[in-house]
Amino acid sequence: MAEKARKKHLEFRPHFKTHQSAEIGEWFREAGVSKITVSSVSMAIYFADHGWEDILIAFPVNILEIDEINKLAQEIKLFLTVESIGAVQFLEENMDSKASVYIKTDTGYHRTGILPTEINQIDEILNIVSSSANLNLTGFLAHSGNTYEANSKREIIDIHEESIRQLSELKSRYIRYFPELRVSIGDTPSCSLAENFGDIDEIRPGNYVFYDVMQYFLGACSMEDIAVAIACPVVAKHTDRMEIVLYGGAVHLSKESVIDNKGKEIFGLPVKINDLGWSKPLSYSYVSRLSQEHGILQTRPDVFDSIQIGDIIGVLPVHSCLAANLAKQYFSFGGKEISKM
Amino acid sequence: MAEKARKKHLEFRPHFKTHQSAEIGEWFREAGVSKITVSSVSMAIYFADHGWEDILIAFPVNILEIDEINKLAQEIKLFLTVESIGAVQFLEENMDSKASVYIKTDTGYHRTGILPTEINQIDEILNIVSSSANLNLTGFLAHSGNTYEANSKREIIDIHEESIRQLSELKSRYIRYFPELRVSIGDTPSCSLAENFGDIDEIRPGNYVFYDVMQYFLGACSMEDIAVAIACPVVAKHTDRMEIVLYGGAVHLSKESVIDNKGKEIFGLPVKINDLGWSKPLSYSYVSRLSQEHGILQTRPDVFDSIQIGDIIGVLPVHSCLAANLAKQYFSFGGKEISKM
Repeated sequence: MAEKARKKHLEFRPHFKTHQSAEIGEWFREAGVSKITVSSVSMAIYFADHGWEDILIAFPVNILEIDEINKLAQEIKLFLTVESIGAVQFLEENMDSKASVYIKTDTGYHRTGILPTEINQIDEILNIVSSSANLNLTGFLAHSGNTYEANSKREIIDIHEESIRQLSELKSRYIRYFPELRVSIGDTPSCSLAENFGDIDEIRPGNYVFYDVMQYFLGACSMEDIAVAIACPVVAKHTDRMEIVLYGGAVHLSKESVIDNKGKEIFGLPVKINDLGWSKPLSYSYVSRLSQEHGILQTRPDVFDSIQIGDIIGVLPVHSCLAANLAKQYFSFGGKEISKM
Repeated sequence: MAEKARKKHLEFRPHFKTHQSAEIGEWFREAGVSKITVSSVSMAIYFADHGWEDILIAFPVNILEIDEINKLAQEIKLFLTVESIGAVQFLEENMDSKASVYIKTDTGYHRTGILPTEINQIDEILNIVSSSANLNLTGFLAHSGNTYEANSKREIIDIHEESIRQLSELKSRYIRYFPELRVSIGDTPSCSLAENFGDIDEIRPGNYVFYDVMQYFLGACSMEDIAVAIACPVVAKHTDRMEIVLYGGAVHLSKESVIDNKGKEIFGLPVKINDLGWSKPLSYSYVSRLSQEHGILQTRPDVFDSIQIGDIIGVLPVHSCLAANLAKQYFSFGGKEISKM
């Protein structure tokens, strides 16, 4: 992804919310990364404590954390996300140190952000920022989370093109007043699949560090790209149902699921782990149900017979961000522990 | 629940996986509880470290944790759950200290457990236990998790009656060989709603400590019984959609949802918190979508207008076990922190 950003002349500010690991962060540094994105103040503090000095908190500013935000702004180059006049006014009145702001723009996902057509609101926010002693404008930021609901690569690209078109319009409108204004996008499906980034200045993908079964279903990655598996001990086998009970439930995988083309709800795909990596997903096998600690692996006779109580099965998660958040620790092949927030 | 167990002459062995808190555990001790249930070896170690000396791990024994299990068996009165000949054979060969076993019985949920009709398998397990120096039989244990899929209280009671009928048959069959044999059930809907417990000796409900929106929808509790809410700061408001953005996403609430009678998918219900408690759920309002850190509160004009950026909204979780597991800390009203695993 770093290489792609370089080729496309895009600033690369990867999102660290997926791995939440200082040690994995170092791998990014080796790839030339110095600016990062996080989704909470506590994550920003964690990575600042691990030497990151240029951090965007890509979540609408939580004004209840103003003390921590002020402290961070003294220590690092801090970027905040605003999407309302109220919040930016609050920052204007309460920031003691300098911080930059991105305006969260809703280019179609309709989760958060200001619609690019709400020019009056945008103008007012820009006025407050311009007249503020401690706030600087960076630009506009969008996250096309609606690509996660797309049914084809074409649809992902269409959503992406529409998002960059809207950001491009905002950029042309305001760059005369803010010559350094930048526009930034974030979602992993677009960043993985798109070749055209138009006027975009920066990308902030996060999930791609691990990818997952959902991204595979979206066509955003290959099965070989998935880089995290949950190690689940086998605790029981039920021959009559061809089911294997894994010690790996909703508190390990999260309850995120995908529906496959046969209508089956899938909570994860099983692989066999060895010291060097893992196998392809085991054929005709998937995690079909989850409760708090149990995962039910639905399988077929040959796979069923090859797995014994006491084995450890890897489960490729449907949503790696949630599964990694639930993980208490990571291990590399060979068993080296990798630190985590 | 302790009172109900006393009245019905049932041993009470509440499940502590929902709260995972030593301090909340003390409230149970005050209610006369001395025997508990947990769902993992690590949870057993945590509660053993906090003075609990009679613990059942109600999860099929994970033979990879035999060292920790042996250590626990030296320190406390330990009960293990088995559901296969292989696992019980492993215990027979590898337990250095005494432990008691429950045989997990599948009375209709079809997640884990041996069917009561698989008499040969049960006999073989009982033979291994009987001839073992370190293993004792406690009896049969079931968990009617299928009550969570019931559509009425009647259906919950029917599932419960069927479960106790099967356990009762097992008890009559084997009690002549094991005069102290006990049968145990666990699910909160049955334990909350049932009046008849037949030959049941022990109940192990856990969720009821907090209850949640799912239990309310099942009819297992009233709205006033729900005893945990996730405190979510308000970070944005979107007038055009009557949506409020909460800092409370899938990493706080889990992705568990319920479908209401109008077909709406609900991820939580909002309440206003004060120093003494919280309000009824805010009318016509519910958490309609979740991403990693964002929760979208769908609401109506009067509620929308009464909530401002910087407020803290309580969200009653759909599944308190998963939400509480995700919580990093609890606070009582008044702000006292309550310790957690």
